[in-house]
Amino acid sequence: MSLPEALVASLTALLGTRFSQTNADRDHHAQSESFHRAPPPDAVAWPKTTEEVSQIMAACSAAGVPVIAWGAGTSLEGHALAYSGGVTLDLTQMDKVVQIRPEDMQVTVQPGVTREALNTELRATGLFFPVDPGANASLGGMAATRASGTTAVRYGTMRDNVLALQVVLADGRIIRTGSRAVKSSAGYDLTALFLGSEGTLGIITELTLKLFGQPEEVASAVCAFVTLDDAVECVSATIQSGIPMARIEFVDAATACAFNQREGTTLPESPHLMIEFHGSPNGVREDAGRFGEIAAEFGAKDFDWATTAEDRARLWRMRHGAYHACLALRPGASGVVTDVCVPMSELPAAVHAAADDIAAEGLIGPIVGHVGDGNFHSLMLVDPGNPDEIAAAKRVAKKMAERALAVGGTITGEHGIGVGKRDLMAAQHGDAWAVMGAIKQALDPQNILNPGKMVPDRN
Amino acid sequence: MSLPEALVASLTALLGTRFSQTNADRDHHAQSESFHRAPPPDAVAWPKTTEEVSQIMAACSAAGVPVIAWGAGTSLEGHALAYSGGVTLDLTQMDKVVQIRPEDMQVTVQPGVTREALNTELRATGLFFPVDPGANASLGGMAATRASGTTAVRYGTMRDNVLALQVVLADGRIIRTGSRAVKSSAGYDLTALFLGSEGTLGIITELTLKLFGQPEEVASAVCAFVTLDDAVECVSATIQSGIPMARIEFVDAATACAFNQREGTTLPESPHLMIEFHGSPNGVREDAGRFGEIAAEFGAKDFDWATTAEDRARLWRMRHGAYHACLALRPGASGVVTDVCVPMSELPAAVHAAADDIAAEGLIGPIVGHVGDGNFHSLMLVDPGNPDEIAAAKRVAKKMAERALAVGGTITGEHGIGVGKRDLMAAQHGDAWAVMGAIKQALDPQNILNPGKMVPDRN
Ligand SMILES: Cc1cc2nc3c(=O)[nH]c(=O)nc-3n(C[C@H](O)[C@H](O)[C@H](O)COP(=O)(O)OP(=O)(O)OC[C@H]3O[C@@H](n4cnc5c(N)ncnc54)[C@H](O)[C@@H]3O)c2cc1C
Ligand SMILES: Cc1cc2nc3c(=O)[nH]c(=O)nc-3n(C[C@H](O)[C@H](O)[C@H](O)COP(=O)(O)OP(=O)(O)OC[C@H]3O[C@@H](n4cnc5c(N)ncnc54)[C@H](O)[C@@H]3O)c2cc1C
Repeated sequence: MSLPEALVASLTALLGTRFSQTNADRDHHAQSESFHRAPPPDAVAWPKTTEEVSQIMAACSAAGVPVIAWGAGTSLEGHALAYSGGVTLDLTQMDKVVQIRPEDMQVTVQPGVTREALNTELRATGLFFPVDPGANASLGGMAATRASGTTAVRYGTMRDNVLALQVVLADGRIIRTGSRAVKSSAGYDLTALFLGSEGTLGIITELTLKLFGQPEEVASAVCAFVTLDDAVECVSATIQSGIPMARIEFVDAATACAFNQREGTTLPESPHLMIEFHGSPNGVREDAGRFGEIAAEFGAKDFDWATTAEDRARLWRMRHGAYHACLALRPGASGVVTDVCVPMSELPAAVHAAADDIAAEGLIGPIVGHVGDGNFHSLMLVDPGNPDEIAAAKRVAKKMAERALAVGGTITGEHGIGVGKRDLMAAQHGDAWAVMGAIKQALDPQNILNPGKMVPDRN
Repeated sequence: MSLPEALVASLTALLGTRFSQTNADRDHHAQSESFHRAPPPDAVAWPKTTEEVSQIMAACSAAGVPVIAWGAGTSLEGHALAYSGGVTLDLTQMDKVVQIRPEDMQVTVQPGVTREALNTELRATGLFFPVDPGANASLGGMAATRASGTTAVRYGTMRDNVLALQVVLADGRIIRTGSRAVKSSAGYDLTALFLGSEGTLGIITELTLKLFGQPEEVASAVCAFVTLDDAVECVSATIQSGIPMARIEFVDAATACAFNQREGTTLPESPHLMIEFHGSPNGVREDAGRFGEIAAEFGAKDFDWATTAEDRARLWRMRHGAYHACLALRPGASGVVTDVCVPMSELPAAVHAAADDIAAEGLIGPIVGHVGDGNFHSLMLVDPGNPDEIAAAKRVAKKMAERALAVGGTITGEHGIGVGKRDLMAAQHGDAWAVMGAIKQALDPQNILNPGKMVPDRN
């Protein structure tokens, strides 16, 4: 598909050099962090304002040309790839922190602001934004995938931390959803509808987020377990005991090994939990003590408390680097990452079964997880030139998802659908998937917003 | 409008005596807790199962007859009244607790279970469901209005505590939304869409809810302030300090007076805060101490700590009885209740301005609020036979809502839209209101689910 000349002319007039059809710019937007590959889009546009996004949408809508939003491109299921061609709308130049309101613990940002940039900007206020996927994703992309990460067990996901949105609809109309009040019963929850809609219902051009006070006291630690079951059952027991964890992360023996290779650490090559407590000095001491008792019951040892801020930063940098550390276990490999989430009581069996499946397929597939939410991932290391290995990894991913569904869980806790999980939507949602299709049809009748994703094909 | 004979025949065949066209049954469903009045529905149906709801919807859809869900009928804006006639679907006989899963801290209930019945049923498990509007509402109705109440400041609203729904659509299809995992990125958030939809998108026939462990330690108190501003500013300061309040309720001098008259208490006739802390014994002691220091700065006095469980129950029974206690301030009066929510920093000015407006209209209008959320209500006591007084109360309600919007808040924090707030939807949502209309059209093309509410009229 090539773009209609009139559209190229009008977008060039609007954006100048911020509209490009060069191969380099297009190819850059055909990359994905995972093994998904697609042809490049026909063009890339870098708007700076909501009004420009509105004009781009109006023009593309008039021409019937697809528009695919692009935040930081870190999504793992091929979400932002232009399988049907069209214009990739790269939002990285909409990177302003619009307004910080410390008295309400809120901030309003443009969608291209990354979570690291936001937290840097907030440092002086004593406030922070807690949602923390490992990658330095954009807040627009995080909203569009309903992202979470290590701190969701305490602070919630993007679903819990976005108060209001500005959205450009398929036809260019600009709307606002939500408000700056912390709760509202004023009509359908459109904010929640756009969160997780992966660019298929509208383009998020502004977000109002909740902030939190930096905790007075923070304590972090890593500890080792003999078996995977011990570690995961320790998590269930901890959550049930009601100890307020700020983070509780599982990494398996292979990941510990990857850390040692990449970071020069000397962790025992066994499953670990990485934990963190936030609160008052007394509260943190009490929580850490109670956790220590529970962990001891499950045979935890080699407790290593990170006492300084630098030690803590190093600990979480290591956790955030797990993806790349694990990739390095097999040089040249691509990652088939998969993500499921189950009710807490089902977590030990689900992790155990996933490990068995990976072993049965003869794959290297480290498992890590935000286990306080019942959420875990496997990163299967495949030779990108070997279709058999990719097929084996996909089989494992499918089994993990089906097993999650069988116990009342979900095919994805945080990564989203993209192209990788779309085949499982009918299994998860049944007739509710058609309802999603009806909503898409109502909001994007021409099917130009990230087409081919999320909802059933139209008849 | 009278119902088509074929419909009456088929619903009678399906439900027997659980389908009624008697005046008594119809009139009972034309009542509302507030001043809103409407003609009765043409008939009332009491289904017992999801399948019956599905068959009723299919039959009414075939006949093009409106269906209005009815939970406990405690909503305050005329939500459940049958302004366009049709069949009221009374869900009180769908009152089973389907499954308690203590290990996952979850429960699945039918929609007619009330919050008090649920908590009675849960008592032995050590778990409780926190969302707590004063009234003994049904969980289906609470979900359909996105209700909250005194504990939202700590435990969140229905938006935060519903994991999954079963819903019957306008045409009788049965769908499930959400899952039993605590988070999910699998597609559009239909759970959130049905929460707060006030029976206009589907009938909720089952809900899966989050539960919480009963706190180890609870401390409650009431304390008095000299001025309204002192009390409300104390709340802002407390929330900003990050002290984890389980409840922080404002009642004004008129309400304190109403308590004294009804409960025989001897509260000073001045503004009060009613507070509660949940946690470990140490944590609660620490929190209560810090709150005491802040409150002292704002001149709080007459601290009365409820030390026994009975004292605490009495305290919150009194708060929950505020509506009826205040009504009794003016025998024979009806209540025009209104509810707004603003960003925390705007709360003192908003409450102050509301009090001034009420006084300027010469009305008696006690103000109470779940002020930890920036949410407050006024209950204006009007003579139901005096249109001037009703008009004056409505003017105040409109001013309060407009002022909330002007400072970034919402026209309703928890009561919802019903008929009372529909005129304000355009002011709050602008073009987003039309998006709500498009979603309604997609899910209920015949406009039979609670017609005339929530969305714009169709052209
Ligand atoms: C090493 C690594 C670790 C990760 N860990 C986590 C984790 O712990 N938790 C987690 O949740 N995810 C994790 N991810 C996945 C990824 O970071 C998240 O999905 C993130 O939210 C994507 O944000 P992005 O800005 O990169 O979005 P992109 O990849 O650019 O886009 C994602 C989707 O959102 C749409 N989109 C982007 N911006 C907008 C907008 N403004 N309006 C509308 N639609 C938009 C796109 O069209 C696309 O469909 C990880 C990824 C990597 C590489
Ligand atoms: C004294 C008093 C105090 C109150 N305090 C609070 C408070 O603190 N916080 C608060 O949020 N509210 C409060 N309310 C308002 C009221 O209790 C809530 O709105 C409550 O959620 C209504 O529940 P219900 O079961 O009575 O619903 P109903 O009044 O029966 O119905 C409410 C709406 O929901 C729809 N509906 C009901 N059941 C279903 C279903 N199963 N599926 C689909 N739609 C359905 C109805 O059609 C209607 O539109 C108070 C009311 C009173 C009288």
